[in-house]
Amino acid sequence: MKQVERIGVSLDKKLLSMFDRLITRQGYQNRSEAIRDLIRQQLSSERLSHPKTKAIAAVLLVYDHHLTKLMQNLTDLQHSHLLQTISSMHIHLDEHNCMEIIVLRGHVDEINKMAENILSLKGVKLGRVNLVPI
Amino acid sequence: MKQVERIGVSLDKKLLSMFDRLITRQGYQNRSEAIRDLIRQQLSSERLSHPKTKAIAAVLLVYDHHLTKLMQNLTDLQHSHLLQTISSMHIHLDEHNCMEIIVLRGHVDEINKMAENILSLKGVKLGRVNLVPI
Amino acid sequence: MKQVERIGVSLDKKLLSMFDRLITRQGYQNRSEAIRDLIRQQLSSERLSHPKTKAIAAVLLVYDHHLTKLMQNLTDLQHSHLLQTISSMHIHLDEHNCMEIIVLRGHVDEINKMAENILSLKGVKLGRVNLVPI
Amino acid sequence: MKQVERIGVSLDKKLLSMFDRLITRQGYQNRSEAIRDLIRQQLSSERLSHPKTKAIAAVLLVYDHHLTKLMQNLTDLQHSHLLQTISSMHIHLDEHNCMEIIVLRGHVDEINKMAENILSLKGVKLGRVNLVPI
Repeated sequence: MKQVERIGVSLDKKLLSMFDRLITRQGYQNRSEAIRDLIRQQLSSERLSHPKTKAIAAVLLVYDHHLTKLMQNLTDLQHSHLLQTISSMHIHLDEHNCMEIIVLRGHVDEINKMAENILSLKGVKLGRVNLVPI
Repeated sequence: MKQVERIGVSLDKKLLSMFDRLITRQGYQNRSEAIRDLIRQQLSSERLSHPKTKAIAAVLLVYDHHLTKLMQNLTDLQHSHLLQTISSMHIHLDEHNCMEIIVLRGHVDEINKMAENILSLKGVKLGRVNLVPI
Repeated sequence: MKQVERIGVSLDKKLLSMFDRLITRQGYQNRSEAIRDLIRQQLSSERLSHPKTKAIAAVLLVYDHHLTKLMQNLTDLQHSHLLQTISSMHIHLDEHNCMEIIVLRGHVDEINKMAENILSLKGVKLGRVNLVPI
Repeated sequence: MKQVERIGVSLDKKLLSMFDRLITRQGYQNRSEAIRDLIRQQLSSERLSHPKTKAIAAVLLVYDHHLTKLMQNLTDLQHSHLLQTISSMHIHLDEHNCMEIIVLRGHVDEINKMAENILSLKGVKLGRVNLVPI
């Protein structure tokens, strides 16, 4: 079972009321949840700055699916790093383009290296890498 | 058929050689492909700065799957915006946590609003939004 | 006089201990100060997403100071927007390059427009814009 | 004297025309200059990902100048790292707040450490760090 602790935070009345308005607009039910999210984001981005942190990555690509060679390359890349690829999803965007989201597991530096390899393939038009430390 | 044009770019020898080394390391086959990617990224981020740009978004969440209420909320949110949700993927991370990637279509401002609603749900630990203009 | 309020935040013991370690390393004296900073950053970035927010900007440039035409352009740009330029600082980097930091005041969209004009001047090698809402 | 080289880049007609429109709006005189800027930004951000890269940093702070203890701390911090502080600029924002821009020289990891120390001082409300590799 999770142990929950309660801490006190003192802050300027004006700062608090601006924060309250923001989180209401964002849909938060209470301040604790919003502050926990800020803390988690901070911790997460700090951990991802270390190359050996273990992480899950979602690599998002937009590419031209007429390039069958590219699709072969993508498949090869995923299989040559077999342990890292967890899952992938394919979305049809229009006549020319599709989006592929590939979920990988590994160290931050290795993920970035592999993602760079994918993003530099001919035919890949746009790419993003999202990392979540685990 | 796509029409291709060839333009000339003049640049400092030293800058060029640093660029060549970087793109070789990244795995690019030639400079044109690397420069096209830089241009596409620039155009893409510029377009996403306008709230009414149409975009595809991949919303990535990490959440505690024991919270069945959250999973119900997530499903409701997706169905209340039926036209926008294209696809989703679920990945088991560990005993407590799972990752969900939801792909949406819509205007930049609407996507951001919906993403904020999702990210503020109790039990969602981390979230990212990736936008690709279409 | 500022009115200070004290709120309670409940969070998981493990999350709290990771946060405590991070902020100690960062040099914070207490949690309230660290959480206030997270809240301020959040509010600040939210406000800067609106084009009509009033802001102070520090525009940072690296450029070749042998290009006297550029220096003339920079001076002209600052004077044509007289009300916005508050101050500037010039730093000698090496034989070829210098850094200039120009502090401006205005609406977010106007600042971005002017900054783009500066950054696109021939001879400007690198540029960054920092916005602080006021 | 700088040696300039001319390379050819082939790209889709539609991509080129969108790029031309963007850079015209941004104020660029020609494509070469715009592409050189994209390349420099790419190289710059790649180099800054290595902790031992030498860099110039502009640390930007907003703080309450009534806190004389803070101002003493800031001065001490700058003098305890004497070799790194190159210059600083002070801007009066309003009755309570002022902005300080401190320009430092050093390795990326040391600069980040010192910047964290400054940003965590009580009374510092907002902070940004800009790094330029040298």
